[in-house]
Amino acid sequence: MSTAMTVTTSPDDDAAGWRARARSDVANVVREFVAARSRDHLGPAPETRVLADVLRRFVEGGKYVRSAFALAGWACVATPTASAVRAAGSLELLHCFALLQDDVMDQSPLRRGRPAAHVLFAQWHHEQHLSGSAARFGESAAVLAGDLCLVWAEQMLRQSGVDGAALARALPRYDRMRSTLAVGQLRDLVNDARRQPALRDVRAVARAKSGDYTVRGPLELGAELAGASAAVIGALGRYGVVVGEAFQLRDDLLGMFGAPDRTGKPVGEDLLARKATTVMVLARERADSAQRQELAELDRLPRLERSDVDEYLAIVAATGAREQVEGLIEQRLREGMAALSTSALPVDARHRLTHLADLCGNRDQ
Amino acid sequence: MSTAMTVTTSPDDDAAGWRARARSDVANVVREFVAARSRDHLGPAPETRVLADVLRRFVEGGKYVRSAFALAGWACVATPTASAVRAAGSLELLHCFALLQDDVMDQSPLRRGRPAAHVLFAQWHHEQHLSGSAARFGESAAVLAGDLCLVWAEQMLRQSGVDGAALARALPRYDRMRSTLAVGQLRDLVNDARRQPALRDVRAVARAKSGDYTVRGPLELGAELAGASAAVIGALGRYGVVVGEAFQLRDDLLGMFGAPDRTGKPVGEDLLARKATTVMVLARERADSAQRQELAELDRLPRLERSDVDEYLAIVAATGAREQVEGLIEQRLREGMAALSTSALPVDARHRLTHLADLCGNRDQ
Repeated sequence: MSTAMTVTTSPDDDAAGWRARARSDVANVVREFVAARSRDHLGPAPETRVLADVLRRFVEGGKYVRSAFALAGWACVATPTASAVRAAGSLELLHCFALLQDDVMDQSPLRRGRPAAHVLFAQWHHEQHLSGSAARFGESAAVLAGDLCLVWAEQMLRQSGVDGAALARALPRYDRMRSTLAVGQLRDLVNDARRQPALRDVRAVARAKSGDYTVRGPLELGAELAGASAAVIGALGRYGVVVGEAFQLRDDLLGMFGAPDRTGKPVGEDLLARKATTVMVLARERADSAQRQELAELDRLPRLERSDVDEYLAIVAATGAREQVEGLIEQRLREGMAALSTSALPVDARHRLTHLADLCGNRDQ
Repeated sequence: MSTAMTVTTSPDDDAAGWRARARSDVANVVREFVAARSRDHLGPAPETRVLADVLRRFVEGGKYVRSAFALAGWACVATPTASAVRAAGSLELLHCFALLQDDVMDQSPLRRGRPAAHVLFAQWHHEQHLSGSAARFGESAAVLAGDLCLVWAEQMLRQSGVDGAALARALPRYDRMRSTLAVGQLRDLVNDARRQPALRDVRAVARAKSGDYTVRGPLELGAELAGASAAVIGALGRYGVVVGEAFQLRDDLLGMFGAPDRTGKPVGEDLLARKATTVMVLARERADSAQRQELAELDRLPRLERSDVDEYLAIVAATGAREQVEGLIEQRLREGMAALSTSALPVDARHRLTHLADLCGNRDQ
């Protein structure tokens, strides 16, 4: 981290300050890395200029959750170095890869309140008066932009300056994270396409996608890069699994009930995309016969209008699924806190992880 | 290579035998690597079983051109080791990534005479009675299979057993190759979508896609991993650029005039996909006013029937573009041979590279 704390206030203020600095340090190194790679590898053609432009804007947004967990994992062992910040930043590039592809696969028009990358590329196709389908071109270009992020992420980690032996120790975990990401996305698509996905399957995918890739993976990777003991990695793993689940459950609620001006996504976006989320699967399980029939009628609609979305949300809320998911989140966060009660973790590390768990479980964006 | 030559016949027979052994050695290590990764990272769900199955069959086909060049590059310096074979094999996985994605972007129904991966995944979606668009699911799943190949390729190279210092020296080249691959595919899509792409742009993309990624890149990578001198790398680079161009020009001719039972692709596939290839761009430049008008009429058809394809091919042949491309291939191969006339390369290495250049320029599949 670039600045040391000079005035000590409450532990939570300290943690919030730490998080804000981590975020800004990571944002800087990611921006610099992408600018350098774009300069070296993209070239001056119009299509590579628009590619560089979309990538530059794409990597600037976001919550920087994964890099925060990587740095928090590192900080359980030692003060994060500039190399640690770069290694953590590489996870943000990996996440950009995942988002670019997911938005194509889910046909999401918006990302963070702005047009998704595939929409921007489609607009460019149109402006250039190119032939063929602009939408199809936009999707292909966004997938290729994602490829670059996936390749550059690995490069940024490898070139982070982290000690070679530590890197060699941590890379199998990184490889597993990347495979899990692709497999998790496939299983997600399959669950979305199942007429009645089982809660078990939906939660298994949520665990794979968030536990392994959003919280647990980055946390353990950061700790391992810093040379953490098995006791530290074990405690972080137990915390990571449950806080990752809380993160995903909150995502599911925000995808249904989130405020568009906070989430940057349309109202009821997961409904529009017919996504099989925990809250939706629970609602189906809890629905009485009248609610079940209303849901079945809405399911059969080829397209959802705003009033249909409102009706869906009202039924889901009426089943009590929303409260149940809120209860699950609270329970997971409590389990996460319990995992931190170990002498293996320094006190300030526990404060940071408590702060981050709260952000994961109780955010509105 | 697993077996030493015992009976020496002609240099070309030696080179052909070397190539056949290289191919079978590489096919073995790639098959084993993918089987191990599938076992470790994919899991037992039905959708991951089909993913493993598609990947297993996908990596078994192909010409193994890139690994042959990597091993030929290595063999300019030393006898390829088992580590060299694994490093070369990683380029085949990288190529699988490129093919899986390209077939989605080009909507190619066939790959090597069999249904393309996205078609197989769409069939699976249908068989499982899943909801939503089977075609769209198939494309997403094929892109995700490609992601795994991209990640696994880098992993296979890193874990090949090649000396760490040699690997560190060669990785910037590998990174550049991977970026160029994504950028080349984007530029290809843009050229295809231009109503009148310039020959200059089409050839620049062909050079990027084949020179850097099919011939020159693998060749230089293999040589660099083996610790080649600057003189060797320089000679291989000069050879690689022109032989890579010959490879791509032959690809363009096969995409128009190739025999489907050899190419595994439909007749006139590049026409059906409206691809901007050198032969097509040259034909447009060479066409007289009557031919130009006939081409314009065919261009306006929303769908090409077999008779339209035949008509297209007849016009292209009548412009003399086909002969001109044949002449360009011959010229590039001669330039490639000239680049080999240097004392930096051992005699048997020159024989192997002559053999491989001939395969690139004069193949029928």
